[in-house]
Amino acid sequence: MVAAGASAQVKPEDAIGYRQSVMNVVGHAFGPMISMAQGKIPYNKDVVVKNSNVLDTIIDLPWTSFAPGTEKGAPTKASMKIWSESEKFKEHADKVQQAAANLAKVAKTGDEKAVKTAIGELGKSCKSCHDDYRLKEARN
Amino acid sequence: MVAAGASAQVKPEDAIGYRQSVMNVVGHAFGPMISMAQGKIPYNKDVVVKNSNVLDTIIDLPWTSFAPGTEKGAPTKASMKIWSESEKFKEHADKVQQAAANLAKVAKTGDEKAVKTAIGELGKSCKSCHDDYRLKEARN
Repeated sequence: MVAAGASAQVKPEDAIGYRQSVMNVVGHAFGPMISMAQGKIPYNKDVVVKNSNVLDTIIDLPWTSFAPGTEKGAPTKASMKIWSESEKFKEHADKVQQAAANLAKVAKTGDEKAVKTAIGELGKSCKSCHDDYRLKEARN
Repeated sequence: MVAAGASAQVKPEDAIGYRQSVMNVVGHAFGPMISMAQGKIPYNKDVVVKNSNVLDTIIDLPWTSFAPGTEKGAPTKASMKIWSESEKFKEHADKVQQAAANLAKVAKTGDEKAVKTAIGELGKSCKSCHDDYRLKEARN
């Protein structure tokens, strides 16, 4: 993972805002693909290729912004377990990245069934981490 | 430009939040490269390749979220001229995308001088659009 030029002196509220921004973009890219996998909207290869590339390109960005000192400073759904179980959190992050890279690879083949399976696998990785490390309500 | 599965029924506040999120990620990716071009931090090819790829991949995402009906609904610095001069705004957007694509291409060569020139060109494109279409203070 290449650090994206992160500063050691970043303000906690900026780190929180940044990781929320990345997650917002991730959610917007993943949403339509989930709907396709669930058969709610038609499968569209171009959208899948584009959106899975977005995910694969930015999914590693938030992790470094969960640095010590960014536990609070603005409303956040980040569980304090992220910092007390940082190795387990990192394992989740690695799995999500692998699943996103796999989806981006499979997307290019246009094999609809394989793509939908890869979408499901990524969705499971997201959910697994959210279940453990994302609070239901934002805390301060 | 591939529409990233945008819904026609998106809420204005969600569109505003989404484009602000993308711009936040764009700013975080571009910031270190500007500092490199200005000689404030050392040139780092890995960061330039990574961050320019982030820019090139997501820079087209905000444009469709400036759809009619998303002029207001949450605090925004988006000038109303975006909607009254939508063709000119689109020209700016296209120039920014071209400059970002060029930077991502040049970044891979590792030619520091050419990279810094490409960073400067992208910076000019960003500024030109911001000067015309981004307000200094957020409005409601």
